[in-house]
Amino acid sequence: MGDMARASVLLTGSELTRGAIQDANGHFLAAELTRLGVPPMRIVVVGDDPDDLEAALEEALQLDLLVVSGGLGPTHDDRTVEILAATAGIELTVDEALHAQIEQTSRDAAERLRRPYHDFEPGVRKQATVPVDAAVLGLAGTAPGLVLRAGRTTVVVLPGPPGELRRLWPPAAEHEWVTTVCSRNPQRERRVMRFYGASESAVARALEAAGGETDGIEVGICARDFEIHVDIASEPGRRVAADRLEEDLAQNLGKHLFARDHRPVEQLVIELCSGLGLTLATAESCTGGLIGSRLTQVPGASEAFRGGVVAYDNDVKQVALSVPGSLLSEHGAVSAEAAQAMATGVRTALAADIGIAVTGVAGPGGGTPEKPVGLVHLHVLTPSHDRGQRLEIPGDRDAVRSRAAAAVLHLLRRTLAQS
Amino acid sequence: MGDMARASVLLTGSELTRGAIQDANGHFLAAELTRLGVPPMRIVVVGDDPDDLEAALEEALQLDLLVVSGGLGPTHDDRTVEILAATAGIELTVDEALHAQIEQTSRDAAERLRRPYHDFEPGVRKQATVPVDAAVLGLAGTAPGLVLRAGRTTVVVLPGPPGELRRLWPPAAEHEWVTTVCSRNPQRERRVMRFYGASESAVARALEAAGGETDGIEVGICARDFEIHVDIASEPGRRVAADRLEEDLAQNLGKHLFARDHRPVEQLVIELCSGLGLTLATAESCTGGLIGSRLTQVPGASEAFRGGVVAYDNDVKQVALSVPGSLLSEHGAVSAEAAQAMATGVRTALAADIGIAVTGVAGPGGGTPEKPVGLVHLHVLTPSHDRGQRLEIPGDRDAVRSRAAAAVLHLLRRTLAQS
Repeated sequence: MGDMARASVLLTGSELTRGAIQDANGHFLAAELTRLGVPPMRIVVVGDDPDDLEAALEEALQLDLLVVSGGLGPTHDDRTVEILAATAGIELTVDEALHAQIEQTSRDAAERLRRPYHDFEPGVRKQATVPVDAAVLGLAGTAPGLVLRAGRTTVVVLPGPPGELRRLWPPAAEHEWVTTVCSRNPQRERRVMRFYGASESAVARALEAAGGETDGIEVGICARDFEIHVDIASEPGRRVAADRLEEDLAQNLGKHLFARDHRPVEQLVIELCSGLGLTLATAESCTGGLIGSRLTQVPGASEAFRGGVVAYDNDVKQVALSVPGSLLSEHGAVSAEAAQAMATGVRTALAADIGIAVTGVAGPGGGTPEKPVGLVHLHVLTPSHDRGQRLEIPGDRDAVRSRAAAAVLHLLRRTLAQS
Repeated sequence: MGDMARASVLLTGSELTRGAIQDANGHFLAAELTRLGVPPMRIVVVGDDPDDLEAALEEALQLDLLVVSGGLGPTHDDRTVEILAATAGIELTVDEALHAQIEQTSRDAAERLRRPYHDFEPGVRKQATVPVDAAVLGLAGTAPGLVLRAGRTTVVVLPGPPGELRRLWPPAAEHEWVTTVCSRNPQRERRVMRFYGASESAVARALEAAGGETDGIEVGICARDFEIHVDIASEPGRRVAADRLEEDLAQNLGKHLFARDHRPVEQLVIELCSGLGLTLATAESCTGGLIGSRLTQVPGASEAFRGGVVAYDNDVKQVALSVPGSLLSEHGAVSAEAAQAMATGVRTALAADIGIAVTGVAGPGGGTPEKPVGLVHLHVLTPSHDRGQRLEIPGDRDAVRSRAAAAVLHLLRRTLAQS
């Protein structure tokens, strides 16, 4: 680690620390810096208070690379450049070429808004005032993106609005001062293994058994969307060892391993259906449309997905899915029998090759001793398979619904993978 | 400021610093802490590296309140509790009562996954090991939420998965050690005004006209879920002035103002329907179930929502919604006529009082010069109203779908409010 370049990200704006808006830049910059071989050691969000900003900058200037966003506007409370220069002990100067550009943009705006340009001049001068020797990356609106060197630290300064930040990032990433820092780090090869149906601790044990983390191989385990993801990052010299680790894991947890990339399960399902030339229809009770919504997030879902019935009320299960009233009164709407009848009914009603169904008690109300909140029955009916599954899902209404949707998509994926 | 309580948020996990996933907790915790009167001075994200985590904890323990999330799992890279205790100089101990709870949950999981419990035991022991004198907030899965005191700092420890964090937050916010810290700050009265159909800049102008921010009154404007939210925070002495500001805004933008609380639009719709004794059914094409999914997020949705038809394929529009093939061939599936026929069809098919429908081109494919990506037709059919609406929504597939769903829910809300 001694000689590795270390980076951090600093996001400014009281609207972030007050939770008024959701930050969209931290995630983007973290992924980009990781791609460049310098995953940020930390991402810090501070408000507009000058002291807080200065303290955060002082820390960030201990590392090799800093990307700071926000506070580049024309008004008095946009102080990022001013405080950065003061903290780094760099003089400020008006960049005349930049001033000319911003002035032009502002004159156009003034005309559009029918206001005298003179109102804009102070803001123009402020935004054209940059640290001596800073490189200008271009303009987003009237805010310039900058790259500069402050002691040991290369600093990239970007505007806060996500669209503007994303537009000015590429020239920053390609700037010589930035690539020089990144080139100090070994470019890691990254791979992911995704498991379903194995507990996080089972995956952890399999990982230990396979040798776990070793020099030059970083492994992270995390639970996401009810899947367990193993992220493996290996340095160039350790590729073979990483291959071996990956294969050992695959051996050990083979029946749970379902993907080595990031395609969401709904996309895998659509691709499997399309590949097999099969069409799909959904019958949803407690998930209320969530499964259809996830399937249709996939561009081109129409190749396989015909549609579905949200049978929330029991009448609808009878009318739209032809579930016999006698079945409902005998077994109840939350039962293996109802789930199977719903899958059969939707497959027929929508003339699809495959029918899948979910019925359950999402809560908070509606639970009974025999049928508690969290009880869910899934069913998958394909030309070759007829499979039901019973789950007792812990947690609140959202947890029950989202996990039930994930579970039926994985049940279908597994079933189709065996076809 | 001297005596004001200062808080910070610390989010842990290399999946965040590597940009593998978008954080969902920082925004939530910032808003919650702001609501409690202690907006975080900073939000810090660090990876799983113990040194980075320790450095971040040392800093955070300079302030009065810390909320830390993530790293509570059973695996080797879940070190938050261990490192927090070491940094704060607090002993760790196995909480036997907690151990019993986690063991029970794990035995159930072991059974469900058909694995021997002893595989889980090490993880159980790890997760039941907590700082001496820590208060247990409850379990999310097998991870306990904790509150403890480390020197001057009250620390709340929560699991990383957003659903689990949100579930364990309320008991944390109400815990005596936390309320004691928050009570040191002046409690601002917070109110929200939510507008739909007005631009952010129109709201900003109306706000200026009404006097805007003044001493002791803080105003934030932000766009969320295609609504514009105005958050007004006033100090005790400024209540009357805040009332006046609120009323001026209501005067000025009355026709766009629809709520003064945070109930989501789908809940307002369910409550309006229930209040009027009307039942509701949905017909969705490009939204694919998203509207039904949002409506059924509301506990008790069954009081008004009967169900819906996801008519993704045109055959389904004909078969399940009785949309005439001639209408589709004449006007196309994305047309005001098709939307109206879908609303009519689902209302009849599912025997509901109200039918709502959405059809559109979500993209990326499927656009034509006459019917570009983003073109959406909505329709709302109630006992007293028959309303269609045409939208051209900019942005990607997700943006088109989510905005179309929001638009039809607001169209129905407005229509019912006039009933």
